[in-house]
Amino acid sequence: MRTGNEAPHPRNAYVNGKVVPIAEASISILDRGFLFGDGVYEVTAILNGQLVDNPAHLARLERSLSEIGLRSPVPLSELPERMQSFVTSEGVREGMLYLQITRGADTSRAFPFPDPEKIPPTLVMFAMEKKLIDAPVAETGTRAITVPDIRWSRRDIKSVSLLGQVLCKQAAVAAGVDEALLVEDGFITEGSSSGVCILTRNDVLVSRPARRDLLDSITRKAAHLLAGELSIPIEERPFTSEEALNAKEVFCTSASTLIHGVVAIDGHMIGDGKPGPVTRRLRELYLEIAGSEPVIVHNPVFP
Amino acid sequence: MRTGNEAPHPRNAYVNGKVVPIAEASISILDRGFLFGDGVYEVTAILNGQLVDNPAHLARLERSLSEIGLRSPVPLSELPERMQSFVTSEGVREGMLYLQITRGADTSRAFPFPDPEKIPPTLVMFAMEKKLIDAPVAETGTRAITVPDIRWSRRDIKSVSLLGQVLCKQAAVAAGVDEALLVEDGFITEGSSSGVCILTRNDVLVSRPARRDLLDSITRKAAHLLAGELSIPIEERPFTSEEALNAKEVFCTSASTLIHGVVAIDGHMIGDGKPGPVTRRLRELYLEIAGSEPVIVHNPVFP
Repeated sequence: MRTGNEAPHPRNAYVNGKVVPIAEASISILDRGFLFGDGVYEVTAILNGQLVDNPAHLARLERSLSEIGLRSPVPLSELPERMQSFVTSEGVREGMLYLQITRGADTSRAFPFPDPEKIPPTLVMFAMEKKLIDAPVAETGTRAITVPDIRWSRRDIKSVSLLGQVLCKQAAVAAGVDEALLVEDGFITEGSSSGVCILTRNDVLVSRPARRDLLDSITRKAAHLLAGELSIPIEERPFTSEEALNAKEVFCTSASTLIHGVVAIDGHMIGDGKPGPVTRRLRELYLEIAGSEPVIVHNPVFP
Repeated sequence: MRTGNEAPHPRNAYVNGKVVPIAEASISILDRGFLFGDGVYEVTAILNGQLVDNPAHLARLERSLSEIGLRSPVPLSELPERMQSFVTSEGVREGMLYLQITRGADTSRAFPFPDPEKIPPTLVMFAMEKKLIDAPVAETGTRAITVPDIRWSRRDIKSVSLLGQVLCKQAAVAAGVDEALLVEDGFITEGSSSGVCILTRNDVLVSRPARRDLLDSITRKAAHLLAGELSIPIEERPFTSEEALNAKEVFCTSASTLIHGVVAIDGHMIGDGKPGPVTRRLRELYLEIAGSEPVIVHNPVFP
């Protein structure tokens, strides 16, 4: 097994019902996750040892599975308990849980779905410690570049066919920044691994509606709810990279970074070059609530 | 290990330098091939126990690797010998060799490339028997449907992030046919797992030029060369699904099916509903030459 990188890293993994040390956590090379990127995943934040907004993540997982015609090998109703008990047994208090379901190991290496009665899907999970509350990015903010959105057209499916996202993120790293904002027809769709919102000079929160061309970001949805509590008006509409450059604030959302400010885009400073007050306030509120109760009370309803 | 499907299936696999029984051939769940679809692959036909046009496949592999910034863990100059000796030791006389290289098992599950000095890439191969010469599809032809091309924009990279192709192929299977022809802006790009050419009513072979939106199909390139030998004029230009419906002949190309006729598209019969004479002649010629010598003598030069 070839692993070995610096911390943080998972201690154990859940692989098809068994918990094994991460160095022994393996799947067949014939697994369709490996051969075809034929699977879906979720990343859920962990705060105080508890999964944050997990019902919303499970609802999105259920939708992703359904869109690719895949059934969870474990009833979805049983997943919350398995996920939480795995997190607890791993002793992760702050960080994230990764869960992936693929269409299993089929010996034929053929594109069509194999018979699900013969080829059971693969379910893996691992948990990692990560500083979410005192994350350095909360203070420094993220610098970003814009890149063409090269991804497939079903971005609403949280699939593991992620090479497009990987190449966009790597373009950001190669440019010396942290995130790539993906641009299609002049509009920002999302970040390579995050959702994106802007606060206009008129203090309106603008956020692209979740359709097939966009992942329905759970943390972004939470940000909408919290903005509503702060009486910040929200416009759900596409926005251009030009609008982002001229915005008062820009922030990204994801389960592993929560809500954090974007302080520069393509070398242009946003605001005063620090995470803005609304971004900070939304992050604070998120952490206050998420540490103790679900931020999103109702399951999301996909438009 | 969860495998087990009907024949054909691989006996052994080559995994990072070792040959192991397929049931024991595994990789880490942290492999970026599994978590991100972050890898590339090639499928090479085997005839008479020999790899067909393997230099062209290796040239394409080299290009795919380069485009995603990945280095082969084995020098590319050594791959031909390793591939052929693996095929020989597997005793596969007719069928295909599958080879995949991914960006290795990194414990961080982070989108950016890991340090290649620390995380070696993963190289796997397996070989499968398959009837290529007397394949039933050569007689019956393939029925196809057209579907929207939902894939990412870098189709020139033969990556394992294949969920788009999988969903398109499954749409074909669900419609009771064998292949999905992918349509973008009214034009057919390629099949879900094949290249596509048409023969017009004026006996011109029309084939879409290989650019970033198209995989440079090795077998399609061979078909071009053979058509040239038959003095069939070739137009390299995009063609519409309308043109395909009205074509004299339509054929698909791939390493695992070679050259074979498309006999119906969206329920409309092509020609007389059987593989056409030019398609048959190209396939015959291909088999004559490929069984004994390379069809493509020079390495392909990508435009």
